[in-house]
Order: sequence, then structure tokens, then C-alpha cells
Amino acid sequence: MIGCINHIGIATRDVEQAAENWAKIYGAIDAGDAFDLPEQGVRVKFINLPNGQLELIAPLGENSPIEKFLQRHPSGGQHHICFEVDDILQARDEMINRGAKVLGNGEPRIGAHGVPVIFIHPENSGGVLVELMQKPTGD
Amino acid sequence: MIGCINHIGIATRDVEQAAENWAKIYGAIDAGDAFDLPEQGVRVKFINLPNGQLELIAPLGENSPIEKFLQRHPSGGQHHICFEVDDILQARDEMINRGAKVLGNGEPRIGAHGVPVIFIHPENSGGVLVELMQKPTGD
Repeated sequence: MIGCINHIGIATRDVEQAAENWAKIYGAIDAGDAFDLPEQGVRVKFINLPNGQLELIAPLGENSPIEKFLQRHPSGGQHHICFEVDDILQARDEMINRGAKVLGNGEPRIGAHGVPVIFIHPENSGGVLVELMQKPTGD
Repeated sequence: MIGCINHIGIATRDVEQAAENWAKIYGAIDAGDAFDLPEQGVRVKFINLPNGQLELIAPLGENSPIEKFLQRHPSGGQHHICFEVDDILQARDEMINRGAKVLGNGEPRIGAHGVPVIFIHPENSGGVLVELMQKPTGD
């Protein structure tokens, strides 16, 4: 059901500084502009690799889910994996039918790529927070 | 310098059980056979996705690095990200020149894909353990 790995989410205090480090150490210099995603409580910057992206995410505003993660992992680290699905509503319903816990109220939200996403509780994926993202059209 | 995301390493107590869960919940049914990698202290099973893999890794033998990870993260979780490089020795030397800490004695080891790999300390990547893997020829 899941398709491609779209991106790996990496939590950090400062997406610009983190991107500079990925460029300096790993030569990963192809990055987009940083932007805020207030409804998800995150500031985001993507690093582009040939077959996917790293999504650098920093806390934004109060009650950011990234703040809680960084309190547990002060150096930052891998936060989630995002997989593409063809149809987010169908995927959401399948998740529920298969006994998985969809976070929030179960309604897809618009994610960092401008397409609807849902998150699945880590308890359903061996401790891995999973994002499912409707595959952007025109890709 | 880094190229494609080759795989995302996910630590678990039982690679077969974890693979069953990824198949049951996410429909990720294309998986290889599990195998032991004694020199790295891990048991491994790959799940194939269209543009990369999930590498399920469980502790093998004494002093497995996965055992320490699972003590800190009893439910399992994201353990490392593996990126492809063209030449592992050149990449190793560049890492050192750029001030990064190559784990172990700095000599590449043969990884789960049968090609040489090195690991970079998470302090060089915002808390992310990074594996660099020489791109397999014939891919």
C-alpha cells in the first residue's frame, strides 16, 4: 500500500544551521527555502537528494510536537518517515481497518508539500512515527 | 557528495515480526530473507520500496550496538540513515578532512549489501547516525 519514501523528518533547533551542516559535512547543498507551517507547529526546510528528501523541522510556537521530541533528544535526530500513498482518504480508512491509530482527529491536514497527510502512531510501526502523504500530482 | 538514500535503518527485537507488521499494517510485502551479520552484531531483513529500503536490524550476540539502542528505545525506532557514495575511501577521507568523526578504526567494513560502509558519529549530523555505503556496481 505504501509507495515511495518521500522524505525522512529530522528534528533540530535551527533548520538553517542544520542545513548548513548537511552541506558542509555531507555536500548536500541542494536545499529549498525555510518556511513556517504554523498549523503543525513546525518550521521546515527540505534538503533534496536524488531519490528523496531530508525534511529538517524545528519547533514553531507553543506546544510544538518537535519541542517535546527535542526535550527527549536534545541533539535532535530522526523524527519520522514519510511514505507516499495514492489516495490519502483511502489510506486513512485502510489504516483504521487494519487497527492502526491515526493521530489527531483522523482528518488529513495539508502538509509541507501542499498535499494532505496523516500521521500514524509509532506503536503501530515498531517505534517509528510514520507520515502518509498523498502523492503530489504532476510529479 | 552523498547521493541517494539507500535505506533507513530501524531497530527492533525481532526482524521477522517487524516485517510482518510492516506488511500487515502498511502493505509493505516485498521483503528479503533475514540474515546475520555477525561482524556488525546485527540480524538484518530488508523491506523493498520503489525508491529505497527499510533495513530492519535486531541485536545479534554480545555487545551489539542495537542492544544499547533498544535499551534506550524499548519499542525500537529509527536507528540510522544510509546514503550512497561513489567511492568509500574517498568519502572516508573527505569526512575526516571536514572534521567529522568516522566510527570504529576508520577502515570501511563490508555491510549488509556486500559493499564497504562507514558510519559517521551522530554529533556530526544533528543527532542522526549516518551510514555511507559505496554504491553497488551493476545497480
